[in-house]
Amino acid sequence: MRSETKRVRILRMNRAESQKTTDIVVQEFPLTIVLNDVELVSLLCSPKNLDFLAMGFLFSEGLISSRREVSGIHVDKERGVLWVETTHKRKIPQGFAFRRLITTGCGKSLSLVNRSEKGAIRKVESDLTIPSGNIYSLMSKFQRRSELYKLTGGVHSAAICDRNRIVAFNEDIGRHNAIDKVIGECLMKGMALRSRILITSGRVSSEISIKVARSGIPVIVSKSAPTSLGVQLANELGITLIGFARGLRMNIYS
Amino acid sequence: MRSETKRVRILRMNRAESQKTTDIVVQEFPLTIVLNDVELVSLLCSPKNLDFLAMGFLFSEGLISSRREVSGIHVDKERGVLWVETTHKRKIPQGFAFRRLITTGCGKSLSLVNRSEKGAIRKVESDLTIPSGNIYSLMSKFQRRSELYKLTGGVHSAAICDRNRIVAFNEDIGRHNAIDKVIGECLMKGMALRSRILITSGRVSSEISIKVARSGIPVIVSKSAPTSLGVQLANELGITLIGFARGLRMNIYS
Repeated sequence: MRSETKRVRILRMNRAESQKTTDIVVQEFPLTIVLNDVELVSLLCSPKNLDFLAMGFLFSEGLISSRREVSGIHVDKERGVLWVETTHKRKIPQGFAFRRLITTGCGKSLSLVNRSEKGAIRKVESDLTIPSGNIYSLMSKFQRRSELYKLTGGVHSAAICDRNRIVAFNEDIGRHNAIDKVIGECLMKGMALRSRILITSGRVSSEISIKVARSGIPVIVSKSAPTSLGVQLANELGITLIGFARGLRMNIYS
Repeated sequence: MRSETKRVRILRMNRAESQKTTDIVVQEFPLTIVLNDVELVSLLCSPKNLDFLAMGFLFSEGLISSRREVSGIHVDKERGVLWVETTHKRKIPQGFAFRRLITTGCGKSLSLVNRSEKGAIRKVESDLTIPSGNIYSLMSKFQRRSELYKLTGGVHSAAICDRNRIVAFNEDIGRHNAIDKVIGECLMKGMALRSRILITSGRVSSEISIKVARSGIPVIVSKSAPTSLGVQLANELGITLIGFARGLRMNIYS
């Protein structure tokens, strides 16, 4: 955990009293991803499992569709650069991260557009059913795993689970990054994403619903609130969206 | 508050019991900002005070340096488009939102780079001093103001304060957007930013420290945690950074 945190000197105030002490803050690491010699994006992230992050990010953005397309990953932690080589050199849509995932159609209706040429998002098909007791139990395991959060209060966490256990768990200062890391970990380790559950500490906005649909995961469980578009897209994309999962309570939004 | 929230049907689970009911979720609104006929960026935001958001965003990104540069703002809420005209047509740096604010130099040191040609960030100069009691009192007022958060649990809030009171307050689904909105509100209403205090519900990462420095605000108070780079940049930029301000406690990081 040493590389993910940093000890800093602080003044701790309590009512009118102050005390010089130290505190542990979470590291923020600037990482540039270079895809086939093209500088793609710079992310601010937690400096652990950067290969999972890159793999998950490329997959979520529709720039790769499987692990097999990646022929090499090389990280230079000193310089904050990660190079990815793929077997199949897809054209990167210009300003791809700008391209709107959602476009306002006529009369306030919303429609999905493809982010990249091959990146059509399909409705998630699954007959997964999970008893509520399993969700409570998974959520409790999830909470206990989040060590960096306990230490610093400054990160989000995400997990991929089957019905009974957590199969991948990652933390990151970014809500999106934490999810990209668990998706990336499953891809790299050859673990299935379909028929899995995604747990996230963060809010479920439209971008999260889309990311999850793209990976074929049928269930999102969040400790936090969803947004209106997050709920709407979950409905359209065939995802079960659970919010405010805390203790023995939860809200099912779709 | 009606346009900022949406009522959705949910299934509320409590232990093994379930109840069909409704819940209020926060609206997520896709807004495209067009600057002098150039499509600049699409933000996912809360659909209130979109003019403040656009003004604050352009200022934070270094694309305008004062309110006087803006000759017109027009919002089409149906289409989710906001047009801004400026008197002085600055060249928009290509892929400006991609450009790294922070670049890793040699040997892990970090250095600031300019985001736009005119956007050099200066160290904040201020002799503002605030007794700790005022911070506690402002924080308590800040917490009471956050109505949308109480209703939906799904938003961030930000405020600009003088020593005794909140002068601008906004909420948004985005941590950055809420801060851009209060900065934009001050700009539009001709209120000073220097010698003010920014309060945020969100984490203080490097981007927040830079945004605040650019507006000349000398003090950041956050309910949440800072990151390592957030603290480092606050130190370099002459900003007092207070984290975990809750009740009668707070940590001073710089």
